Amino acid sequence: MYNMTIRLQADSDVCLYEQIYLHIKREIKEGKLLAGERLPSTRSLAEFLQIARSTVDTAYGQLLDEGYIEARPCRGYFVCSIEDMMEVSDEEESQTLQREPLSSISRTEAEEGISMLPGNREGAKRKKFDVDFSPYDIEMQGFPFDTWKRITKKILSEANSDLFARGEPQGDYELRQTLCRYLHSSRGVKCRPEQIIVGAGNDYLLMLLEKILGRHKIVAMENPTYLRSQKIFRSFAYQIKSVDMDEGGMKVDSLEEDGADVVYVMPSHQFPSGTIMPIGRRNELLKWAGKAAGRYIIEDDYDSEFRYHGRPIPALQSSDESGRVIYLGSFSKAIAPAIRVSFMVLPDVLLERYQRDCFFYSCTVSRIDQSILNEFIRDGYFERHLNKMRKIYRAKHAQLLACLEPFRGRFAITGENAGLHLLLTADSATEDWLVGAASDCGVKVYGLSQYRSDQSDVSKTVLLGFGALSGEQIAEGIRRLRVAWNI
Amino acid sequence: MYNMTIRLQADSDVCLYEQIYLHIKREIKEGKLLAGERLPSTRSLAEFLQIARSTVDTAYGQLLDEGYIEARPCRGYFVCSIEDMMEVSDEEESQTLQREPLSSISRTEAEEGISMLPGNREGAKRKKFDVDFSPYDIEMQGFPFDTWKRITKKILSEANSDLFARGEPQGDYELRQTLCRYLHSSRGVKCRPEQIIVGAGNDYLLMLLEKILGRHKIVAMENPTYLRSQKIFRSFAYQIKSVDMDEGGMKVDSLEEDGADVVYVMPSHQFPSGTIMPIGRRNELLKWAGKAAGRYIIEDDYDSEFRYHGRPIPALQSSDESGRVIYLGSFSKAIAPAIRVSFMVLPDVLLERYQRDCFFYSCTVSRIDQSILNEFIRDGYFERHLNKMRKIYRAKHAQLLACLEPFRGRFAITGENAGLHLLLTADSATEDWLVGAASDCGVKVYGLSQYRSDQSDVSKTVLLGFGALSGEQIAEGIRRLRVAWNI
Repeated sequence: MYNMTIRLQADSDVCLYEQIYLHIKREIKEGKLLAGERLPSTRSLAEFLQIARSTVDTAYGQLLDEGYIEARPCRGYFVCSIEDMMEVSDEEESQTLQREPLSSISRTEAEEGISMLPGNREGAKRKKFDVDFSPYDIEMQGFPFDTWKRITKKILSEANSDLFARGEPQGDYELRQTLCRYLHSSRGVKCRPEQIIVGAGNDYLLMLLEKILGRHKIVAMENPTYLRSQKIFRSFAYQIKSVDMDEGGMKVDSLEEDGADVVYVMPSHQFPSGTIMPIGRRNELLKWAGKAAGRYIIEDDYDSEFRYHGRPIPALQSSDESGRVIYLGSFSKAIAPAIRVSFMVLPDVLLERYQRDCFFYSCTVSRIDQSILNEFIRDGYFERHLNKMRKIYRAKHAQLLACLEPFRGRFAITGENAGLHLLLTADSATEDWLVGAASDCGVKVYGLSQYRSDQSDVSKTVLLGFGALSGEQIAEGIRRLRVAWNI
Repeated sequence: MYNMTIRLQADSDVCLYEQIYLHIKREIKEGKLLAGERLPSTRSLAEFLQIARSTVDTAYGQLLDEGYIEARPCRGYFVCSIEDMMEVSDEEESQTLQREPLSSISRTEAEEGISMLPGNREGAKRKKFDVDFSPYDIEMQGFPFDTWKRITKKILSEANSDLFARGEPQGDYELRQTLCRYLHSSRGVKCRPEQIIVGAGNDYLLMLLEKILGRHKIVAMENPTYLRSQKIFRSFAYQIKSVDMDEGGMKVDSLEEDGADVVYVMPSHQFPSGTIMPIGRRNELLKWAGKAAGRYIIEDDYDSEFRYHGRPIPALQSSDESGRVIYLGSFSKAIAPAIRVSFMVLPDVLLERYQRDCFFYSCTVSRIDQSILNEFIRDGYFERHLNKMRKIYRAKHAQLLACLEPFRGRFAITGENAGLHLLLTADSATEDWLVGAASDCGVKVYGLSQYRSDQSDVSKTVLLGFGALSGEQIAEGIRRLRVAWNI
C-alpha cells in the first residue's frame, strides 16, 4: 500500500489524530483494508497528509492498542487478521457460541494487560500515557517487602527436603486451615479446609472447575462483566448468557428462560460497574440455584477487601444453605498480581466430583510459596497489610472524589463505595470521545463498552482506576481531563 | 458386618496376608462386599481366623493402598465405592471412552503418590514400608539448598515492584531465553524463546494443550505408560489408544489404523519400561506425523538428564523438520518435585493457535520463582547440580546392579541404561507374588501391570526405583528381597 487519502477536517470537534484513527478503523471494519496489508509508514503518511508525524504516531498507537494493526520489526505496520482473532476452533464453531463484538475483543487485550502478540516481543508497541487510570493496577509501594523477604528467608532456612517434595493436590493442609480461618472471620465464608482447593491463579482454577462441572454448560454473566473470565468460559465452549444489571446487580428473572446452569457473579463489588449486590437480590439468586439440581453460582470475590462506606458485607457463600456457591478468591489485588495463589471453596457435591475426577492433577503452587503465604496470613501480617492498604486507598479515593467535584455538573459518579476504580457517566459526550480526548492529553481512561457483550446503546461511561496512582498523578490526571473535556 | 470366613491354606505358596488380601479384593470385585460396607476390625478378624493381628493389618494396608477400602477415623474400615471412582461424567459416558482396568486405577493413586481422599486427611492410612523402591522419588539430599536460598535472597533484595506485577502469559522472556539456550546445548532442541510456554507443572501444560489442540482427539500412548498423563487425557475425553512396544519402543505400524491424531511418547527414557527409542524408530514416528495435517507428537522428556551408558541422545524434537513435535520438560526430577515449573516448546502452527485461542490465560508461575530458576540455570548452578546428581545416581545405580547379581539366574534386568529405576522380570514368579512377598518383608516394589492398559498376560515384572534411597537402604532392601523371594 502506497498511501492513504484521508479527508481531514481541521475545524472539526474531533481532533486530527482521532480522525485518522477513526478512518483506518472504519476501513478495517468495512474490509477495505485487508488483513496483512501494510499501512504507510508514519513518516510517509504524515508527509502525504501534511501533518505532524506525532499525530500519525498517536493514531497508529491507538490502533495498535486496540489490536487493529500490528507492528512487525523493521517492516512496518500491518492490518491484523481480525477474523483470525475472533475465530473459534472448528468444533466450537458448530455450537451456539455468542461472539464478542469487535471492539470488545480487540480492546481487552490492551486493557487487561494482555499482550496481543505474546510470543512476539518486538511486535507489540504501545502508546505511553503520562497518567493511566488503570482499573487493574494496584499500589505496590505499600507491599511489605521486608516482611515477605524475612518470612521467605525463614522458611528456606528451616526448609528440609519435605518442603521440596510434591505436596497435596488440593494444597498444603496448613495453608487451607489458615485460609479457612481467614475466610470465616473476614468474609463469613463457612467451610472446612477439606473444601478448599489452592491453585496458581483464577484462570487455572476455572480450568479445573470445567473438569468438575463438565461440558456443555450455559453460564450467565453480568453485563458488563470481567472479560478475562468470559474468554475463559468461551474457551471451554460454554455458552455465555449476558444478563443485564440494575442497581441491585444481575437481574435474576431471565435466568430460568436462559436455561443457565451456572451463574458467575461478583456480589461484593461487581467489575466493572462497582455495584454491590443487596441481600434481597442475593436471596433471589440463591433461590434460583436451589430450584433445580446441578445449578451453581460462582462467586468471584476479587476485591472484597476494600470498602469505603458502610460495614463489610459477608460473601454470598455465607448465606448459602444448600451447597450451591463456589467461592473463588485470590491475592492478586490484596497482595500482588505476582502472588500466583488463588483458591476456591467447593460445595460438598462438587468436592466429591473433584475427588473422583480430578484428584490426579498436581497442585500448581509450590510448597515454598504456600508456606510463605501461610505464615504471612497466619501471623497477622496480611491483616496488617490490608489495614494499611485500606488507609492508602481510602486517601486516594477521597482525593479523586474531591478532584472530581467540578465534574459533577456534567457527569454522574457511580461505583464509588468500594474497590479501586469508579465510573464517570457523561450527560452528553460519548465514551469514544471521552477516551480519545483524554488520550490526546496523555491520559488513559477506560471505556465501559468494552466490558459489554452488546453495543446497543452508545456508551457515555468511562472507568477511572486509582489503585496504582500517586496523589500527584491523580491531581495531574484530573487536571488534564478538565482540559481535555473542557471542564 | 460381623465377621468374615476365609479359608486360609497354611501350606499354600501364597502367604497368609496375601490370601486375606486376595479374598477381600475378590469379594469386592464380585460385588459380594458392597460399597460402604464395614469390614471387621483387624483385631476381631485376627481372633476369628486365629492368626496374628499384624497379618490382617498388612492385608488391610494393601487394600487401603490400592483403594479398595478406606479407613474412617474412629469408625473402622469401609469398602470404597469402586463404581464411583470409575464413573466418568455423564457426557463423557456417552463417548467411546476406554476404561482402565480396576487394578490400574486403584493402584495408581497410591503409587504415583496421589492421595485417594485428597480432602480427607484422616481417611487415608497407608502401610509403612521399611524400604520403598519408589520409581517416583528423587534424592533431595543433593539439592543445593544454600545456593537456592542465596539466589532467592538476592532476587528478593533486588526486587522492585515490577517483580510482583503480572508477568507475560508465556513466562518471563529472560527465563525463556535461558531455557532455550539450555535446551539447545543439552538436548539439541531447536527453538526460539517465543515458542516456549512456562507453566506450573506438566498437568497444567497438558490442560493448556487441550485448549490448543481442540477436542475429540485420539491419543496413542505407549503400553505400558505413565498413568498420570493417561488420566489427564481421559479427563479431556480424548480417546486413548494403547500401542504395544518392542525393544525399540512404540510400534509405529498401528498408528494409521488407530486413527491417532496425537502420539505421546518418552523417547529418551520411556516410563516405566526404560526403553530408549533408537533413531530408526524416531524417524518412523516423525514420518507418520508428517503424513497428514494435524498430527502431532508430544515428547515428554521427563528424566533425560540421567544416563549411565553411551552418549547423550538428543531429544526427538531436534530431528523434527516439519514442526510436529511438542516438547515437554520439567524440573521435577532434575531439581525437585516442589519446583512447580514445567515448560513446553510449541511448533509454529500450534504457537499461532495458542496466541489466538489461549493468550488470555495468565502465567501460572510467579515471577519471583521464574527469576530464581532463571538465575539458577543461567549462572551454571543447574549444570553443576546435574553433574553432582549424575555422580550420586550413578553410584546408587552401580550398587543396585551389584546387589542384584545373585538375582540374574532367575530374573532378567532391563531398562538399566538410564533414569532412576530398573525392571526385574522373573522366570516363573508372578508380579502379584513378587509384590506381596516383598511387602511381607517390609519392602515395597512396584508391579509393571498397573501401567498397562490391558491385563492379557500375567505380569512377571516389577520396578525398582533407587532415586531416593541411601546405599544402606538399597543394601537392606535387596537383602530382604532375597529372603522374600528365596534367592
